[in-house]
Amino acid sequence: MNDQELLKPLIEPNTTKLVLVVLDGVGGLPVNGASELEKADAPNLSLLANGSACGLQVPVAYGITPGSGPGHLGIFGYNPLQYEIGRGVLEALGLGIHLTDNDIAIRCNYATAVHEGAKTVIKDRRAGRIPTDHSKKITQMLQEHIKQIDDAQIILLPGMEHRFALVLRFNHPLEQGADKIEDTDPQKEGLEPIVPKPEGRQAQHVAEVALQFVAQAAALLNQEEKANYVLLRGFSAVPRIPKFSDVYGVRALAIATYPMYLGVAKLLGMDTIKPEGGIAQEIETLKNNYNNYDFFYLHVKKTDSNGEDGNFDGKCKVIEEFDANLPGILSLNPDVLVVTGDHSTPALIKGHSWHPVPVLLKSKYVFGRTSASFTERECLKGELGICHSTDILPLMLANGMRLKKFGA
Amino acid sequence: MNDQELLKPLIEPNTTKLVLVVLDGVGGLPVNGASELEKADAPNLSLLANGSACGLQVPVAYGITPGSGPGHLGIFGYNPLQYEIGRGVLEALGLGIHLTDNDIAIRCNYATAVHEGAKTVIKDRRAGRIPTDHSKKITQMLQEHIKQIDDAQIILLPGMEHRFALVLRFNHPLEQGADKIEDTDPQKEGLEPIVPKPEGRQAQHVAEVALQFVAQAAALLNQEEKANYVLLRGFSAVPRIPKFSDVYGVRALAIATYPMYLGVAKLLGMDTIKPEGGIAQEIETLKNNYNNYDFFYLHVKKTDSNGEDGNFDGKCKVIEEFDANLPGILSLNPDVLVVTGDHSTPALIKGHSWHPVPVLLKSKYVFGRTSASFTERECLKGELGICHSTDILPLMLANGMRLKKFGA
Repeated sequence: MNDQELLKPLIEPNTTKLVLVVLDGVGGLPVNGASELEKADAPNLSLLANGSACGLQVPVAYGITPGSGPGHLGIFGYNPLQYEIGRGVLEALGLGIHLTDNDIAIRCNYATAVHEGAKTVIKDRRAGRIPTDHSKKITQMLQEHIKQIDDAQIILLPGMEHRFALVLRFNHPLEQGADKIEDTDPQKEGLEPIVPKPEGRQAQHVAEVALQFVAQAAALLNQEEKANYVLLRGFSAVPRIPKFSDVYGVRALAIATYPMYLGVAKLLGMDTIKPEGGIAQEIETLKNNYNNYDFFYLHVKKTDSNGEDGNFDGKCKVIEEFDANLPGILSLNPDVLVVTGDHSTPALIKGHSWHPVPVLLKSKYVFGRTSASFTERECLKGELGICHSTDILPLMLANGMRLKKFGA
Repeated sequence: MNDQELLKPLIEPNTTKLVLVVLDGVGGLPVNGASELEKADAPNLSLLANGSACGLQVPVAYGITPGSGPGHLGIFGYNPLQYEIGRGVLEALGLGIHLTDNDIAIRCNYATAVHEGAKTVIKDRRAGRIPTDHSKKITQMLQEHIKQIDDAQIILLPGMEHRFALVLRFNHPLEQGADKIEDTDPQKEGLEPIVPKPEGRQAQHVAEVALQFVAQAAALLNQEEKANYVLLRGFSAVPRIPKFSDVYGVRALAIATYPMYLGVAKLLGMDTIKPEGGIAQEIETLKNNYNNYDFFYLHVKKTDSNGEDGNFDGKCKVIEEFDANLPGILSLNPDVLVVTGDHSTPALIKGHSWHPVPVLLKSKYVFGRTSASFTERECLKGELGICHSTDILPLMLANGMRLKKFGA
């Protein structure tokens, strides 16, 4: 049975406060014998871990490296194998747009195409990674000329280098399956772009609109030296996913500085705030809104960014910055405080990885004294053992006395 | 796949003796730094743990607090998410009745009703928690007057204070779904009682009999000051559940002092004995019947009762009492001995909780020397890790050399 189906009838109201801190990609790997968490000087986290239930959580399954979507779904208690946030949707959310049931979101690349006889062939799938400035300029140009195709409003969102996002906003909610369209990217240079192919009847009209968009954009771009074509990938609609408040009976606030995480939280129906600044300002925001919600998701981005860059010391510094600000959270004395990550991003790997993520849970109802610090190897000794990411949310609710007994 | 479906074809006969001791609600939480198991002086248990495979078992899932039904089903190897013992059935078993496939069991409350015009309104859902003596008297009175309704024998079982149980014993086995009837308890005072509502055709006749019972009881109670009405809850039939002996190929005896646990064992087809006295008498019973069975379930109740009462020291004393009597079990030298609980009942929480339960398994085929004592934190270091409650029974069978190889 799905965990959420098990939980829903057990939810009972309470006034307890639950705080979930996600240090993005916090899990690491040893370099010269110590991981980022082991190297960082984090006395507040160590003290907290020693008084908490500790463990490691597996985001999806052993050996599976999660993207940010599945990583977050898991710690929010949604089975990441059951629910999927499409790539187009994630990209569009990351560019700051709010999506509705009327939308199809698509990741796009500018590309270089050449004409070989009657054939159009892709010569460079990334248009030589054109500078972001230029990409932004031509995206604005396209937007000025293409505002509507048939019954779909066209929304273009500039991205980095050759990337942008396209949202087809129809004037009606879409059927399930409307986003089942194959990528137009042929994946290899020297091949023709693929015509948007709908999997079923539900996606046919969307595919037609997408095809028209490609044709109109190519016509408008034909003077461009490099970016004279567009490739569409990751067609996706907003996932049909239960609302966080409906499943767990909490009023939830998401605090993050990057649009994508706020976007994911919005998909689940959370309220969102984007503070200006860093960790200190995020915690200030938590304090200022502490009375108005009972569940708080606070996202720290830079652990992941430094991991992605292979910047071991930079990642340690972000952990230390969080540690220095941790007393601000502790001063609120939440009934349940969890610190974890959505996945590991070891600087050694310069990317997301499959490694289980350290997790600590502080409440009145834990043992503690199993783990001397918040590190991978110390958390392994903890009372949560190696659990699944989807176990975290039920544990938070239980420790917040928000779950009734199962069965008589 | 269901664990039992995996096991059944692997079962092979043997003469080994398996003993499962359930210290009800034995898992606890630290108070002043030590849990009940950590505080209790239990040298025999410590020695046993040190020579056993130790671990923690999760009764249902992380964060889920089990009732006694799911707790016991799990350690008996039945997936508690697949099988359910209804609330009425559990209540009736607790009051000592043996149930059959012809029965619907219902938990009842005496309540205070007032007439507002044509409406009957519930003023007190518990009839002011009338004394048990009085409740018993009026239950006997009802039983004398109501013996049969249509094709159903009416069986009333007095309980504590305002509680009693009702068994509708039909003269034929019931169809699946015959117990799917909504509670008549409106849950809030000031509302009308709910008319027994059948979910489907199979429950229609049962609902009609229940409705007649309510009317006849109300008429007979109309001189009562407080207990002038009855509310029915937890309609349930005996679960369709495989017999313990069929699944595991053992002759099983249950030894317990509380009717509910004997009742659950009877549902699974175990033989049962209720010794007069406490732990010492239970172990005496084990000894006296040791030659006649090969699986023994021995239930110790008072760990849970003290936990429910928030009596930390009382719970420690029960653990110590068990410890003092443990040599009596060890003297039998069973091939496999397991000590665990059906769930945790920390005195700190004064109720069941979601915490994993310590488990030790003693046999010739374990490592041991991982855990210095039978406590939550020491068992965490053990070779069973954090496992699922349904893993215990297969491990007992395996250690008793009662499971064939799976696959070639």
